[in-house]
Amino acid sequence: MSLSYESSGVNYDQLDAFKRACQKAARTTAPLLEQHGYSEPATTRGESAYLMEADDHFLAHVEEGLGTKNLVADVVYKQTGKNFYREIAIDTVATMVNDLITCGALPISIAMHAAVGESAWFTDEKRMNSLVEGWAHACKKSNAVWGGGETPTLRGIVNAETIVLAGSAIGKISPKSLRITGEVRDGDQIVFLASSGVQTNGLTLCRKIADQLPQGYQTPIGFGDTRTYGEALLAPSVIYVEFVRECQQRGIPLNYVAHVTGHGWRKLMRLEEPFVYEIANMRPAPALFQFLEKAGPITTKEMYATFNQGVGFAAYVSPDVLEATLDAARSAGYDAWHAGSVKKESTRKAVTIPSLGLAYEGDTLQVR
Amino acid sequence: MSLSYESSGVNYDQLDAFKRACQKAARTTAPLLEQHGYSEPATTRGESAYLMEADDHFLAHVEEGLGTKNLVADVVYKQTGKNFYREIAIDTVATMVNDLITCGALPISIAMHAAVGESAWFTDEKRMNSLVEGWAHACKKSNAVWGGGETPTLRGIVNAETIVLAGSAIGKISPKSLRITGEVRDGDQIVFLASSGVQTNGLTLCRKIADQLPQGYQTPIGFGDTRTYGEALLAPSVIYVEFVRECQQRGIPLNYVAHVTGHGWRKLMRLEEPFVYEIANMRPAPALFQFLEKAGPITTKEMYATFNQGVGFAAYVSPDVLEATLDAARSAGYDAWHAGSVKKESTRKAVTIPSLGLAYEGDTLQVR
Repeated sequence: MSLSYESSGVNYDQLDAFKRACQKAARTTAPLLEQHGYSEPATTRGESAYLMEADDHFLAHVEEGLGTKNLVADVVYKQTGKNFYREIAIDTVATMVNDLITCGALPISIAMHAAVGESAWFTDEKRMNSLVEGWAHACKKSNAVWGGGETPTLRGIVNAETIVLAGSAIGKISPKSLRITGEVRDGDQIVFLASSGVQTNGLTLCRKIADQLPQGYQTPIGFGDTRTYGEALLAPSVIYVEFVRECQQRGIPLNYVAHVTGHGWRKLMRLEEPFVYEIANMRPAPALFQFLEKAGPITTKEMYATFNQGVGFAAYVSPDVLEATLDAARSAGYDAWHAGSVKKESTRKAVTIPSLGLAYEGDTLQVR
Repeated sequence: MSLSYESSGVNYDQLDAFKRACQKAARTTAPLLEQHGYSEPATTRGESAYLMEADDHFLAHVEEGLGTKNLVADVVYKQTGKNFYREIAIDTVATMVNDLITCGALPISIAMHAAVGESAWFTDEKRMNSLVEGWAHACKKSNAVWGGGETPTLRGIVNAETIVLAGSAIGKISPKSLRITGEVRDGDQIVFLASSGVQTNGLTLCRKIADQLPQGYQTPIGFGDTRTYGEALLAPSVIYVEFVRECQQRGIPLNYVAHVTGHGWRKLMRLEEPFVYEIANMRPAPALFQFLEKAGPITTKEMYATFNQGVGFAAYVSPDVLEATLDAARSAGYDAWHAGSVKKESTRKAVTIPSLGLAYEGDTLQVR
């Protein structure tokens, strides 16, 4: 039997009922912005960042968490003595700021939330210092200040040997014309930016696979990659802030961008308006994903529906700025390529990968 | 033997080493604000909210968490069927916004972080809906929008039966003259605003006391109060946003304010500059605190060093606006009174309570 994300134990239905209740209640608070000189843009709920509109700027607010990736770092640390908490901190910041920039906001301030079950977690100075160093490094990569945080001991809530890593980011769009509004058009071109691995997404399933392997995280992944499974999983996430900033500075309008996280490539159709996103220029999935597909085993269809498959960020641009976008991404240091195009096919919403015979219809993605 | 907060199992030394490492690294990121048109005010690190200064406003950022109070709600819910998750949500928002307003910022946007160990936590619709309703209510009391959030399932990190509740708030000070700068002067008067009970602080110790009581949270607290221990603990925190807003609207300058949380009344000397804060007009501690003192037993000195003792918020004002401040607080619906005065005694920093023969010197509070 092949594995799927549902079978790894995360029940999205139960979570989604809560999310829907939150969104419904949250909407009733929108009028409170007025006294502060802000208002809520009509389409911001359900996007990756919450936006507030003033006369001459937008503020953006993101609260995000790492998920369970640090459990992988914990096992690898115990087994090999190799401490990946610098990478884990970068992951945590990346997951926030990569969400924030999807509206065109650049992060100004990042706060840490680090909740432990026992304060003894911090007695390992090597691990503690790696976490601090990684967090500061990631703030610098994001061009944002590390603006405080919260580090509670939650005995009886958080397991003694672990840590909950999360945080929040404040961003700003100024001038307002730099907002990424989602004005995608038929014929827009799709640019992909490479990921460094699974980044922060699908880790529950990855941990389940480790449990099945005789060598666990020490298994070499092969497929031309000399790293172990643990090392490959713990490669730190790419921070895409410089890509958005570079495009803004060069005057390249980004019609929409997607941070490819939970739901894998289905996230490419996050935009509410229906389009068909055809990925015609496929790169082979990086070694880690080939390893996961085989080790699960996981069907190819489930792989692209769950993992980023080597693609961490996508941008949709007008054909006349396609080359300029690729050039901006590359000069900012990203591995970027032209991946496909956007088509209007009446009310159909889908992500299609013709060379693999795969198609994901809109009803397979519920994020609003 | 009497109980103390340290004996309840929270080791501040281990935590503080981490906090100090964070603050040191965070300071190196301050120059990154410049490109966004902001700078870091010299004295913001170590205060309850992180501030960023622009030409015509300040932005404020807070990341905060509830602590372990929901464990009390969980036990009471199991024992009595009475669900206090509406109150727990209010507590979580209160702990953020009451920190935020200490710099004079009014909250604009509040994001939720709710991490569970199992998504099944949300199958209890009554509890889930109470949490959502309380959060929205608290945002409205804070005049802030509920701007999104994050609700991960962290199996293996968060215990299956519990939830980590936290979040972040964005605030703004505009015009800049409304900033609360900490310009306290010899002879300033101290105004206290009542709390509703322990609010969100000292709960680890409160839970330990419940374990010692034959009737646990069902114990009537007495001292003229008919509630049970559980009910009294779970009274929702007071949100002090309207007090600060009312003072701002009436043009009353607040020289400094303190959100009385961890470290109890020692928080009254949070300001870096040394002063002696003499609390001459004492109200008896509310019934819940008398109960705690007796049940612990806890020495009176430890009580005031740990709990808010009926005082959730303090403001330091010039004598000529003392009456105006009291009037502003009362018309905004708060129970407020004139509690004492601030004295300059060379380099001495202390909180003194002459009628109880108590004094806390500055070296007993390390929050920077």
